[in-house]
Amino acid sequence: MPRLVMKFGGTSVATVERIRNVARHVKREVEAGIEVAVVVSAMAGKTNELVAWCKEASGLFDPREYDVVVASGEQVTSGLLAIVLQEMGLPARSWQGWQIPIHTSDAHGAARIAEIDGSAMLKAIAGRREVAVVSGFQGVHKESGRVTTLGRGGSDTSAVALAAAIQADRCDIYTDVDGVYTTDPRIVSKARRLARIAFEEMLEMASLGAKVLQVRSVELAMLHQVPTYVRSSFDDPADPRQGTLICGEEDIVEQQVVTGIAYSKDEAQITLREVADKPGVAAAIFMPLADANINVDMIIQVVSDDSTTTDITFTVPAAEFERAQRILEDQRPAIGYAALQGATDVVKVSAIGVGMRSHAGVAARAFRALAEKGINIRAITTSEIKFSVLIDAAYTELAVRTLHSLYGLDRA
Amino acid sequence: MPRLVMKFGGTSVATVERIRNVARHVKREVEAGIEVAVVVSAMAGKTNELVAWCKEASGLFDPREYDVVVASGEQVTSGLLAIVLQEMGLPARSWQGWQIPIHTSDAHGAARIAEIDGSAMLKAIAGRREVAVVSGFQGVHKESGRVTTLGRGGSDTSAVALAAAIQADRCDIYTDVDGVYTTDPRIVSKARRLARIAFEEMLEMASLGAKVLQVRSVELAMLHQVPTYVRSSFDDPADPRQGTLICGEEDIVEQQVVTGIAYSKDEAQITLREVADKPGVAAAIFMPLADANINVDMIIQVVSDDSTTTDITFTVPAAEFERAQRILEDQRPAIGYAALQGATDVVKVSAIGVGMRSHAGVAARAFRALAEKGINIRAITTSEIKFSVLIDAAYTELAVRTLHSLYGLDRA
Repeated sequence: MPRLVMKFGGTSVATVERIRNVARHVKREVEAGIEVAVVVSAMAGKTNELVAWCKEASGLFDPREYDVVVASGEQVTSGLLAIVLQEMGLPARSWQGWQIPIHTSDAHGAARIAEIDGSAMLKAIAGRREVAVVSGFQGVHKESGRVTTLGRGGSDTSAVALAAAIQADRCDIYTDVDGVYTTDPRIVSKARRLARIAFEEMLEMASLGAKVLQVRSVELAMLHQVPTYVRSSFDDPADPRQGTLICGEEDIVEQQVVTGIAYSKDEAQITLREVADKPGVAAAIFMPLADANINVDMIIQVVSDDSTTTDITFTVPAAEFERAQRILEDQRPAIGYAALQGATDVVKVSAIGVGMRSHAGVAARAFRALAEKGINIRAITTSEIKFSVLIDAAYTELAVRTLHSLYGLDRA
Repeated sequence: MPRLVMKFGGTSVATVERIRNVARHVKREVEAGIEVAVVVSAMAGKTNELVAWCKEASGLFDPREYDVVVASGEQVTSGLLAIVLQEMGLPARSWQGWQIPIHTSDAHGAARIAEIDGSAMLKAIAGRREVAVVSGFQGVHKESGRVTTLGRGGSDTSAVALAAAIQADRCDIYTDVDGVYTTDPRIVSKARRLARIAFEEMLEMASLGAKVLQVRSVELAMLHQVPTYVRSSFDDPADPRQGTLICGEEDIVEQQVVTGIAYSKDEAQITLREVADKPGVAAAIFMPLADANINVDMIIQVVSDDSTTTDITFTVPAAEFERAQRILEDQRPAIGYAALQGATDVVKVSAIGVGMRSHAGVAARAFRALAEKGINIRAITTSEIKFSVLIDAAYTELAVRTLHSLYGLDRA
C-alpha cells in the first residue's frame, strides 16, 4: 500500500474552515488507497502570540518552559484536524511528539530529532487504516521526558523525518507558494516554477536564501532519499501542472547547468586592512569567532604590494555583525591589523546547479556578465554545485535578473 | 518541612501581569520555608475559545480529541508561570498531566483521577527545592497513553488529589471570591463568610448549589482529610481575616446547628397523577429514568382519598426535563397514570449543618417559618446533616433570607 506524509503550514490551518480544506486534501489521498500521516503547524498567528507571552513573562526565559508553551499551538491544530477528519467519515487520531515518540536532543527551542519510533503509529496507519495527525515542530527529550521544539519552520523537518521513519513513499509539503522557483518571483517576473529539483540543489537553495523549506528538512530528505513534493494547499488538487518534486538527480531527465538563483540579504562584510602576512594570523582571526559560535562564510585574502601585509575580507551573518566587530577589536593586539572596515549593505547572490560538476567556466561567464552591468564583486566563493558573489545590496535585483537570463532560466 | 498545594483559577491567571501576581503569592510561601506545588487553570476565556473551535469542527466531536485541544490551555499557563517564577529567582518547572503522571479513567471530557504517582515531582519539590507548576484539569489514560480532562472546574480536583498524593499539609484554592459564605451574598446582603466549614457540610453545599468548589474536589478532600483553604488571589495576603478553611468537624470549635443555606435553580418537577397504588409501580417509573442516566432527586407520594391511586412527584435536573418527560410518556402504558404535569419554575432551597445530627426539630422550624411567609412547599427531602424544600422560583430570595435569619446566620 502506498504511504504518504502530508504537511500543512500555519496559513493552511489558520481557521477551522481552512482545516476543513486540509481535510479534503487528506480525504482525496485516503480514497485513492493511500496510507496517510499528516503533520500540522500551529494556526497562523498562534505561535507569535505564545512567543510574545513568554517574552512578556521574562526577557530571559527558560527555553524548556518556552517549549512547553509554544508546543501547545500544534497540539490544538492536531486535535481539530482529527475531529474534522472523523466528521468527514475518516478514522483519525492526533499524536503529540511525546506520544509517538519523537525523541530529540535537549537543545530546547532548536532541538534536533534523534530517533522516531514509528511502530505504534504504523499500527494505527497500516493496521487500523487510521489517519495519523501529528503535531509538527515538537518532540520530547528521552532522558528528561520534557517537551522540546525544533525551532521555526521545524514542522517541515518533522514531516520529512517522520516520512523516513515510517518508510513513506513521499512527503508532500503543502505551503502558501505553489512550488520552488528558479528564483524569487517577487524580484524576477520571469521566474519559472521548477517541476523537479535535486536534493543537493534544494539544500543549496535553502542554505543560500530561498525560504521555501527549512534547511534541516532538506538535509534529512537527502540523507534518507525521501522524495519531497512542495505544493500549494490552495490550488486545485486535480491540476497536475503544479508543485515541485525534490528528488534524486537520477530522476531528473532534462538537467540544466544552473537550476536556480538565490540571494541572501542576511550578510555582513568585514575587512581587516594590513594584516601581517605570516603563519597563524588566520587562526588568530577566525578561532575567536568560531569560539563565539559566529559562522564565517566567504573569505578572501588579497596580498598587498609590498608583500608583507595582506587584506582579509570575510562575511558573517548580519545578526552577528556587531558582536563579531567587538570580538575582533578585543583581539586586535593578538591579530595586528591597521584598520577594521565593515559593511551591512551587501547581498550574496548564488547560482546553483548539479550540472556545474560537468561544465567548466560556468562561474566565469557570470563574472563577465556582472562586470558588463557595472556590478562590482566584493567576494566570491564556489563549491562543486554552486558559486556565490558578494555585491552591493543596491544591485541585488539587477544581478539576480542578469544571472537568471544568462543561464537560460527566464520563462518564455 | 511544611508542604502546600496552591491552586489558581482562570481569572487569577488571565494575563501575564496577573500571573506575576500569582507568582508573588507563591514566593511568599516559599520564602516562609514551605515546599510548594502550584496547580493552574487555563487563562480566562481560553478554554471557551478552544471548546468553540471543537464545536465548529464537528457538532459531534470525539471527546478524546476534544481533550487534546482543551488541555493545551493549562499547558500554556503552567509554562508561563514557571518562567515568571524563575524570573523572580525561584527554581521552578512545569508538569503536564502525562509527565507526573496523573492517571485517570478513559471517560474523556469527564475523567476521574485513578492514581497519581507523585514520586518524581516530590524529588523536584523536596529534593531540589523547586516549585512544581502543574497543569490542572488534565491527566493521561494509562493504557492508551492519551490525554484526558476532568471536566469543568476539574482543576480544583487536580489540586486536592495532588495534595493527597504528595501528603501536603494543606491545599489552598485561590479563586475570585474570598471564601465560602453562609449563603449567596448576591441575594442575602447579610451573608457572612465562614472562617471554617466541615468537609461534610461543604460537600452538601457544593452538591446543593453553592458554586465555590467542584463537588468531586470536596469529596476527595474529605476522603483524604486534606485541609482545604478557599481564598481570593486579589486580597492582601497579610490580612489573616480572610478565606474559609474546609476541615474536619473536630477542628471547628464553635459549631452552629445550621452552617449555610444553599439554593439550586437547576431543578424541574414532574408529577404523575392517579398512578395505581400497587407494588412495582415505583420501579416502572424510576427504572427507565435510571437507565437513561437521569438523576432523580426528591420523591414524594401522596395517597388519594379513595386509596386506590396515588400522586407521585419528583425532581430531575432541569437540563433533563424534556428527555424525562418523553421517557415517561413512552412508558405510560406500563406505568398507568391519568396525567403528567411538569414545572421548571421551581427552586430547591437547602439548609446544611453537621449540628442537625444532635438537634431535633431543625427542619420543622423551617417549615413553620416558610408557611408564615406564605411560601408553599412542593416537596421535602432530609438527610442527616441537611434538609431541602422545593418551592416556586418566585420565592427564592424570600425563602433563603427567611432561613438565613431563622438559624441565626445574619451578620450583626
